[in-house]
Amino acid sequence: MEENLIEGRNPVTEAFRAGKTVDRLYVLDGCKDGAILTIKREAAKTGTVIKYVDKERLDHMSETGHHQGVIAVIAAYKYSEVSDILKRAEEKGEDPFVIILDGIEDPHNLGAIIRTADQAGAHGVIIREDRAVGLNASVARASAGAINYLPVAKVKNISRTIEDLKEKGLWFVCADAGGTLMYDLNLTGPIGLVIGNEGSGVSRLVSEKCDMTASIPMKGEIDSLNASVACGVLCYEIVRRRMKG
Amino acid sequence: MEENLIEGRNPVTEAFRAGKTVDRLYVLDGCKDGAILTIKREAAKTGTVIKYVDKERLDHMSETGHHQGVIAVIAAYKYSEVSDILKRAEEKGEDPFVIILDGIEDPHNLGAIIRTADQAGAHGVIIREDRAVGLNASVARASAGAINYLPVAKVKNISRTIEDLKEKGLWFVCADAGGTLMYDLNLTGPIGLVIGNEGSGVSRLVSEKCDMTASIPMKGEIDSLNASVACGVLCYEIVRRRMKG
Repeated sequence: MEENLIEGRNPVTEAFRAGKTVDRLYVLDGCKDGAILTIKREAAKTGTVIKYVDKERLDHMSETGHHQGVIAVIAAYKYSEVSDILKRAEEKGEDPFVIILDGIEDPHNLGAIIRTADQAGAHGVIIREDRAVGLNASVARASAGAINYLPVAKVKNISRTIEDLKEKGLWFVCADAGGTLMYDLNLTGPIGLVIGNEGSGVSRLVSEKCDMTASIPMKGEIDSLNASVACGVLCYEIVRRRMKG
Repeated sequence: MEENLIEGRNPVTEAFRAGKTVDRLYVLDGCKDGAILTIKREAAKTGTVIKYVDKERLDHMSETGHHQGVIAVIAAYKYSEVSDILKRAEEKGEDPFVIILDGIEDPHNLGAIIRTADQAGAHGVIIREDRAVGLNASVARASAGAINYLPVAKVKNISRTIEDLKEKGLWFVCADAGGTLMYDLNLTGPIGLVIGNEGSGVSRLVSEKCDMTASIPMKGEIDSLNASVACGVLCYEIVRRRMKG
């Protein structure tokens, strides 16, 4: 993992605005400047860890000498291509099994999903470029290291990726409460499992591209499962079918 | 939910030492006192949210007038009794289905497990009193509100609780990598599912009390699933058997 520093008030503010994933934010302890407070608010929104340090520490970290009291650390994790995921399936002589995430925002969920995908024998995870968490230190930790083994690809347009993969023979099942009970679906063969955003679920455009909608039995008072748990339950329903088949 | 305040350096330090679950910690902004730094370290270890506030705010919050720059907020969530859980099963006319957690430490995991238990139709969750996270604001949030519906009981001795419940006709299955493939076990009837600590799994004393050990198929490079995902996968394997049966 490479780390890149972004230094100074404007560059750091821009990094948050551009949706870059800041791993850690170093802020001059006691600094009450308005620009710094704005940056701290952005950091709080995205759950970024803030470390309060003294000027000597910032001076020592700084590569530019112009930190203005704030340095953001951006981790550069390596993404794979969608083709790498298909290649992995081919090399193993298995039907492709791909997890597609339509806007997962919580790093714990993304990490747990990558860990689950690895364990369930999926060949890779595809995530969305915008309005979604990317690979960062929290994700890596929550993945228990699976991030180092399982290919994760980032795409601009999930719908188009699904279309492309359909042409390569994959069937797509999306997780949604209003669908067919998962036990009643044919989940064998080359498959893509689509998991939606924690709050809003799978977007309409993406769900329309899917061949099936799978529902997990819900017997409780609330209306859904945690996204990574739902992904785990569906992944292992697919595993069960594959083991039987 | 009730909230209790703990005020002052020694009382707050003691609260952390005693393993009390602090929901939020209010610290005087800019305070560099050694005792406060120690408290902040404890807070960081347990993932407690720290809010930096000014003296006026602390004075306003304080009930004792002696906050010394630090106030901890302890949430008092209500626990149920194990008998409440069995009663719930009886009222629904269902075989008891209980989740027992042998030392879950991460509030996200506990919350997600309570949410999953509710959705999978379990009748309650039993947690350990020591070396485990209790009900707090993070757990409540991660449970998506399921904490308000599903009984959660806290017990001193998990092994003894398992013995008691066995006498009431429950069978116990513990989740562990070295066990029988979950598809090959009889998971019907009155059942208790035991999930272990995130790092060390189910303790030996507890696993020895269990009738069966269930393993989830693992095809990946790493050696386990996230605890809440594993719990979800096993819960739904139990749900599948119950729906078939």
